[in-house]
This record gives sequence, C-alpha cells and structure tokens, in this order.
Amino acid sequence: MPKISTRGVEIPASPIRKLAPLSDSAKARGLTVYHLNIGQPDIPTPEEGLRAIRNLDRKILEYSPSDGFRSFREKLVSYYSKFKINVSADDIIITTGGSEAVLFAFMACLNPGDEIIVPEPAYANYMAFAISAGAVIRTIASGIEDGFALPPIEKFEALINKRTKGILICNPNNPTGYLYSRAEMNRIRDLVKKYDLYLFSDEVYREFIYTGSPYVSAMHLVGIEENVVLIDSVSKRYSECGIREGMLITRNKELRKTVMKFCQARLSPPLLGQIVAEASLDVSDEYMQEVYEEYLDRRNYVVDSLNKIPGVYSPIPMGAFYTIARLPVDDADAFCEWCLSDFEYEGQTVFMAPGSGFYTGQGLGKNEVRIAYVLKKEDLQKAMVVLTKALEEYNKR
Amino acid sequence: MPKISTRGVEIPASPIRKLAPLSDSAKARGLTVYHLNIGQPDIPTPEEGLRAIRNLDRKILEYSPSDGFRSFREKLVSYYSKFKINVSADDIIITTGGSEAVLFAFMACLNPGDEIIVPEPAYANYMAFAISAGAVIRTIASGIEDGFALPPIEKFEALINKRTKGILICNPNNPTGYLYSRAEMNRIRDLVKKYDLYLFSDEVYREFIYTGSPYVSAMHLVGIEENVVLIDSVSKRYSECGIREGMLITRNKELRKTVMKFCQARLSPPLLGQIVAEASLDVSDEYMQEVYEEYLDRRNYVVDSLNKIPGVYSPIPMGAFYTIARLPVDDADAFCEWCLSDFEYEGQTVFMAPGSGFYTGQGLGKNEVRIAYVLKKEDLQKAMVVLTKALEEYNKR
Repeated sequence: MPKISTRGVEIPASPIRKLAPLSDSAKARGLTVYHLNIGQPDIPTPEEGLRAIRNLDRKILEYSPSDGFRSFREKLVSYYSKFKINVSADDIIITTGGSEAVLFAFMACLNPGDEIIVPEPAYANYMAFAISAGAVIRTIASGIEDGFALPPIEKFEALINKRTKGILICNPNNPTGYLYSRAEMNRIRDLVKKYDLYLFSDEVYREFIYTGSPYVSAMHLVGIEENVVLIDSVSKRYSECGIREGMLITRNKELRKTVMKFCQARLSPPLLGQIVAEASLDVSDEYMQEVYEEYLDRRNYVVDSLNKIPGVYSPIPMGAFYTIARLPVDDADAFCEWCLSDFEYEGQTVFMAPGSGFYTGQGLGKNEVRIAYVLKKEDLQKAMVVLTKALEEYNKR
Repeated sequence: MPKISTRGVEIPASPIRKLAPLSDSAKARGLTVYHLNIGQPDIPTPEEGLRAIRNLDRKILEYSPSDGFRSFREKLVSYYSKFKINVSADDIIITTGGSEAVLFAFMACLNPGDEIIVPEPAYANYMAFAISAGAVIRTIASGIEDGFALPPIEKFEALINKRTKGILICNPNNPTGYLYSRAEMNRIRDLVKKYDLYLFSDEVYREFIYTGSPYVSAMHLVGIEENVVLIDSVSKRYSECGIREGMLITRNKELRKTVMKFCQARLSPPLLGQIVAEASLDVSDEYMQEVYEEYLDRRNYVVDSLNKIPGVYSPIPMGAFYTIARLPVDDADAFCEWCLSDFEYEGQTVFMAPGSGFYTGQGLGKNEVRIAYVLKKEDLQKAMVVLTKALEEYNKR
C-alpha cells in the first residue's frame, strides 16, 4: 500500500470530532444530548433565500463565473457599505464557504515555509488550511483573565522573522466572542504596515455584536489597503451554513489576480447557494433584529448561568455566539468525555468542545471549554442545570 | 505591498481564459461566437433533480456531513454497481465537484516534491491542483497519429524514481475522447503494482462511450484495490456542472481517514447540490439514452465534418464530448486568437481551445485544437462551415 502524505497526517483531529462517537452512543443509550459544541445555528434560514431556490426557473444548472455572479457581488457592495466597508464588486471573489476563502488566501499569499501569526484560542480549522498550503502558524496566547483581549503587540513583534508574511485575526472572535477595540486594531495596523505583512481578517460574525463597542473592520484601517484580505461568509448570519458561500475580499489587484487562478482551477463556487445567498441579502431588518435579540438573550442567559455555577468563570463575550468558560476541573478534555460516556442527569447530558483544541500551546485551555449558544433558551436552561450537576458529580468522584 | 506566493504565480493561465476577452469583444462587435471551447453541456438538467430543489422543504440550510449525505452515498453504490464497480457507501466521499476530489487526493497522497505521471494532452487544471499540493506532474505525450492511445508503458517506467507516487489517467479522456483498452489498463495495473503507486483515475465521462469497447474502470483492476483513487462527478453526466458535486472513492481505509481530515476542515460539501444530485440518480433510462444519442450524433457529425475540411485531421474519439483535431496551421494559438479578433463569416466566428494548453511538453499541440461538441447540431453545422472558411482565409493571408 503506498504511503499517505505526512501533511495529511499532521492535521489535528478536531476535539469535537473526537467526541462525536461518544455523543452518538449516548444518544443510542436514549439520552438527550444538548449540543453546546457546534456552530450550527438553529435559527431558520431567511424565507427570501428559501423562496429563491423553490422558485428556481433554470433548465440547466451550469457553471457560474469563477468569481461568482456579478449581480451577487454588486449586491454585496451595498451590504458592506452599511458597515462602512467600501469595496467594489471587483474586489469581491465568491468562494465555496469562508473555508475556501482562507485556503485560497493562504495559497495565494504564502509560500511553503512562510509563517503567519495567530492569537489563540483560534478556530481549529485554520491549522488544516495552513498545513494544506505548507504554511506555518505561530500562535500567541490570549488569556481568559482579560476576556481574551489582543495580546501585547510586542509579543507579535517578537515572533516576526524573515518568513513572517501575515497576521490572522477573527473578529468578532470564534471561539472567544471577543471584539477587538479600535486601539487594538490600530496596533495591528501599525505592525502590519511596519513589516508589510498581510492581514487576514475573518469577520463572519459582524452582525452579532452585543455591546456598544464599534465594529472596526480590517477594511476600515487606513494605510494598509493592499495588505488586507477580508474573509467572509453568509453561513452564520443567515443560518445557511450548508450552502457553502463565502467571500474573499481584497483591494490588492495583483493578489486578486493570483487568487483567481485558484478559483478558475476549481471552475466555480456553488451555483444554487449563490442564488440563496443573493436573495438572502434582501432579508428584512426585522428578521435580523429578531435573530440578534435571540442571540443576545441567549448570551446573557448562558454567561450569567455559567458564572453562577460554583468555580465556573466565563468572560462576557462581546460578539459571535460562543464563549470560552473556565471550569473547576483539571482536565476539561476528560470532563467533556466523561459527560458523554459516564454521566447523565434525568436522561440528559451536555456535549461541549474542550478548550485545548483551540490552542496549539502546550497545556493551554486545559480547564476551558467552548460553549456555543445556538440552542433555544429552554434547552440552554436545561443544559446549564445538567452542566451544574455534572460538575458536582465529577468533582465528587 | 507584501509579495504574492510564487506558487500562485506558477499556475498557468488556461488557454481558454486567455482568449475569453477576445470572444467577449467579438460578441460586443455583434458577432455570433460558436463556443467549441468549453465543456459546459447545453443539455437540460434532469427534471428529477430540478424538482427536488423546487420542492425543498427544509427550514434551515444546515451543514451536511463532511463526507456527504449517507442516503446519497448509498444510492451511488447501486449506481456504480451497474458499471460493475463494487464499492460501499463508506468507500465514497462527496466532494465539492470533481475538482476538490483531485485536490484532496493529491493533498492526502502526495508530499511536497512528490511526483505523479500523467499522459498528455491532459485536463489543464490538474496542474493547478498539483501546484497547490506542491506536487510535480511529469508528463508523457500521447500522439494524434494513434488516436492518443496510452504511450508505451516503458516511457512511464523510465520516469519512475524515488519521488514517484502515482499515475493519473482520465478515462474516457478529456481532451482527447480516448478510451483505454483492457490491455492498456492491465499494463497500467502492472506498473502500479510493481512500484506500489497510487492510480488516480478520473472517470466522469463513463456514460459517454460511443463504441462497442468495454469501459474498464480503475476500480475493476484486481490486485491494486488499495492503490486506486476514483475521481468522479455528476457535472457532465446530468448537465449540472454548477452544483459542484463530485466523489472521491477509495477502498483504502487509511487513505480515506486522511482525506476526511481535509473534508472536515472545509466542513461539508454543498447541501443543495447534494439534493439535486441524489435525485438525479433517479433519472429515467430514456433521458440518459436520449442524451447519449444526441452526443453520439454530434460526435459523428463533428468528426466527419472536421475530416472533410482540407488539411484537418481528427481521430474518432471513443468517449466524452471532445476531440483534439490537427489543423493545417503552424500555430493554433495564433489561429484561435485570429478567429476571434480578425475573422468573421456572415457575422459568425468560432471559439476553440488551442491544443498547446493541454500539454506541458515544449512545442506540443502547436497545430492542434480541442473541440467540445456541446452545441446543438444546427449550431455545430454552422460552426463547421465557419471553421472551413476561417482556415481558407487564414492560409491565404
């Protein structure tokens, strides 16, 4: 049998995937499992998007342009302008989900061996895309004590060497829910400018910011226009993760040309998803407001509840729909596993993502979990009771 | 401005893309341009597929499993069994088009610097996926004189070195339409076995075989079960290129596990396309027969017509919907360009793909073009008249 590539073997198994079989067997035993582990919203997809696909009047489901339909990109221009992100349709490339936008950004900007700096905890799949591109991710830990604020910029600067090509941020952040302040964004801007780096900014959660703090997009930063690559996706904001429609946005014409080579090789982004996503841009303000309030309410409930559990601490996430909480256990991996394999409370248990999976640094996140508040509040209420009981029982063993 | 990756810059611009602006400007001048250049079928997508999407009754367009819906994969098992390809649903991974299947196969099997051998002319985008994976494609030219049959196996063997990890074939072939015989497939099998190589086999055109010759799938080959990676797609057979649904099929469990890491990183293949593709598997035999007869009729017409044009030679393609023809010109790139920029006949012209774009070998395909017969016969008839006139005029200049 021929050998598998070592690159493939290097991709870490997601901490969620590792526990999925345990969750399945808990369900097989008849337990109700509250999924606090995943970012799959339970919010209905906008009717505008669903209607567009039900009314499909095409006879041939043919290739779309490699950079996506122009009509879709033009509509996105006005969408972004509402956030004071001023881009043209030619700055936007439609990708197969935000995932492909990250992959193509890395492929087009980074040579094998090139390095990017990422504050962690971070979205685990960035690592797989970096490995695919042969790039190296250097991480800097942010801490739960200050709510996962941007680490001191000196720590970034200390990692910069001749292979450093960029910085990657996620803002508002998955998994922490942190929102970078204007001062923090300016510090990033100065560093990017000083060393002429790329700034990859994943901003798919911009609709979900729960404080009065301003949303400062990487696209707002003056003086690094050619350095910024905005990663976006309709998945979370319209609860249409399955359609796989994302965006890679750059004002850098040379970079766009290079990204387009990867786009042309894979021919086109998904046609049907584009139809849904384009129509979803017409969604009513009421829908967005309702979704926003739903998440806000859940956030408030979950964070309050977590902080009432003895020994548990969660910062108040400013955006997205996750929080990283510290638990009174020495090994959250073992605890999350135990919840699924050994524990139940009135026929229920909880599935959380162990925090360690969002760090590369040794021993980091060992007593943390990521909790996604994508369940109805009544389920969240039950889940918080179950978690409380689980911690009690676990620490009494 | 930070530097673009050299990898991105290495991806050759497709010969079709280079001419697209000329085609656009020909149309802007009011010309009718017959597109013989692309593999976008004009055949209607099966009503079964369209109906499934119009009847969509989901409220949330959520992630599907990373390897695709089980129901879809199970239906594919019976589809493949009709071709005596015996695989289980667990051998099948749904990918975002055949494109992603090729990329993931390369990523999972090949380390940077590893080599694969590909007979050419070949589908140009294989090169972009190889560059993405850091792999090296070594080519062996097949010739128009023997209809692009498999080059002598000794030529493959001569290229094998310690970095050689696989052989890639496309069968029936894009761009030549050649179908490998059982004897040729056995020779490939023996070589794959002798050197324990991967055999990547792109077989998306299996429905379109116009001779009595048997279709010998790489999956039929005995003794190299763990070495074969079948690349497939519903794009061409159901005329649904835009939905981006392909398959990577392997009986090699370890390889599957590694491919799945790349699949999990990109979360899921497109949801809506899976619904269309799964329903399309229920298409009637009458539809497939009608499509088959349409292509057969076009093939016969195009090949006959080409061979009647003075100085033109086209082998008889056995499958797919392309042929590579030799033209009485010394530079087909220049001729194809001239057809779009300088020529017209009664307000019409033709857009063909220069043959050189399907070769990496220096000077190969210089007097060849790829012609796709994906137009209605009446348009093909007009296109053949236009091509005849174009050649006359070009050679009189």
